Amino acid sequence: MAGQIEAKLAELGITLPLPMQPLANYVPYVVTGNLVVVSGQIPAVDGKVAITGKVSWGVSLDQGKEAARLCFINVLVHLKAACGGDLDRVRRVVRLGGFIAAPSEFDQHALVMNGASDLAVAVFGEAGRHARSTIGVPSLPADASVEVEGMFEIQ
Amino acid sequence: MAGQIEAKLAELGITLPLPMQPLANYVPYVVTGNLVVVSGQIPAVDGKVAITGKVSWGVSLDQGKEAARLCFINVLVHLKAACGGDLDRVRRVVRLGGFIAAPSEFDQHALVMNGASDLAVAVFGEAGRHARSTIGVPSLPADASVEVEGMFEIQ
Amino acid sequence: MAGQIEAKLAELGITLPLPMQPLANYVPYVVTGNLVVVSGQIPAVDGKVAITGKVSWGVSLDQGKEAARLCFINVLVHLKAACGGDLDRVRRVVRLGGFIAAPSEFDQHALVMNGASDLAVAVFGEAGRHARSTIGVPSLPADASVEVEGMFEIQ
Repeated sequence: MAGQIEAKLAELGITLPLPMQPLANYVPYVVTGNLVVVSGQIPAVDGKVAITGKVSWGVSLDQGKEAARLCFINVLVHLKAACGGDLDRVRRVVRLGGFIAAPSEFDQHALVMNGASDLAVAVFGEAGRHARSTIGVPSLPADASVEVEGMFEIQ
Repeated sequence: MAGQIEAKLAELGITLPLPMQPLANYVPYVVTGNLVVVSGQIPAVDGKVAITGKVSWGVSLDQGKEAARLCFINVLVHLKAACGGDLDRVRRVVRLGGFIAAPSEFDQHALVMNGASDLAVAVFGEAGRHARSTIGVPSLPADASVEVEGMFEIQ
Repeated sequence: MAGQIEAKLAELGITLPLPMQPLANYVPYVVTGNLVVVSGQIPAVDGKVAITGKVSWGVSLDQGKEAARLCFINVLVHLKAACGGDLDRVRRVVRLGGFIAAPSEFDQHALVMNGASDLAVAVFGEAGRHARSTIGVPSLPADASVEVEGMFEIQ
């Protein structure tokens, strides 16, 4: 039987893909105590980076926000695996870190990162309200437009 | 009766303002176990970003250091709220992350971030000695010159 | 008697130098509960930054990877101190954060950061498989080409 969070994902029209493994010598998540640390995720869909380039420089604010949303979906995929498949074990989204590839004059990082934050709250409700740090970066792995990492408390 | 840390802040001439809430779907801090994670703070004073632009490019090293200090004051504001108003509950400043908006040839990040680190030690003494990561970034939310995030152990 | 991890380091031909203290008001590591947080490390050797400049812009991919490896050796130095000298107390490399100084068109961050990740797994085996976030940055303290920070679980 699907849990409450899975039901909420279905209601939001989100199907979590199967986890992809990192292409290098690291893992997508580590559990330590009741904390889950999820590796930085890029907006990959079906194994391809869906949104590349710099936000405000070829990539619109809306595309940037969608990139952040896709990153968070990939965070959820690995969080689910960390929970043994049961997202109802998530007690709190503790922290999201957002990295926005953009030129030096960019100043709308918060709007872009809301693509991830809004989804966190839509999925987890009050437990989805998280601490967050968002910064601009000149470049990201595979030319991704956004990267999002996460820390979660589970039971 | 004010606590020891409040007394130290008064001695340093620092009045903590009331907490400002983030303008988006996240919160200024999360408590998990005895850890407090504080969201990235910018040098905002009375709701306005006091120091904007790139350090060494219009913003001097001293202004950058002052920006880092202002960021840490905002971190303290939220840390105090996380402690239910009693900063004497802070057992350790665990980690500060510092993001310095600067051009690619900049190399004085450590000096700038000392504006936050020095205040942490001035306020908390030995318990204020923290792990730290400092990096350069091309841009920050709202064109802030510096952003500082924190992790703390409380009792 | 040397521990298992020390023996592995010897086998890899790695001699850990004595810890260098940060030049500012912070410390190289903090222990909170059974977590160790290690400050961002640059590729310093004998007190000098061995690899400076931007990866792909004067610094080759191989040099960048070597820089990441040197950063992780410095992380190990402080982790060992955090463990009271006994690296066998490390239960898990929880997370590595990698910051790669590079121009905005760079997209090979993952390859560079593998210099740290590969060494983590070579030294700690399964316990060395970690979560990781890697991003590009315009500049780092002391013009370092790479900076690596770490979080570890110890017993």
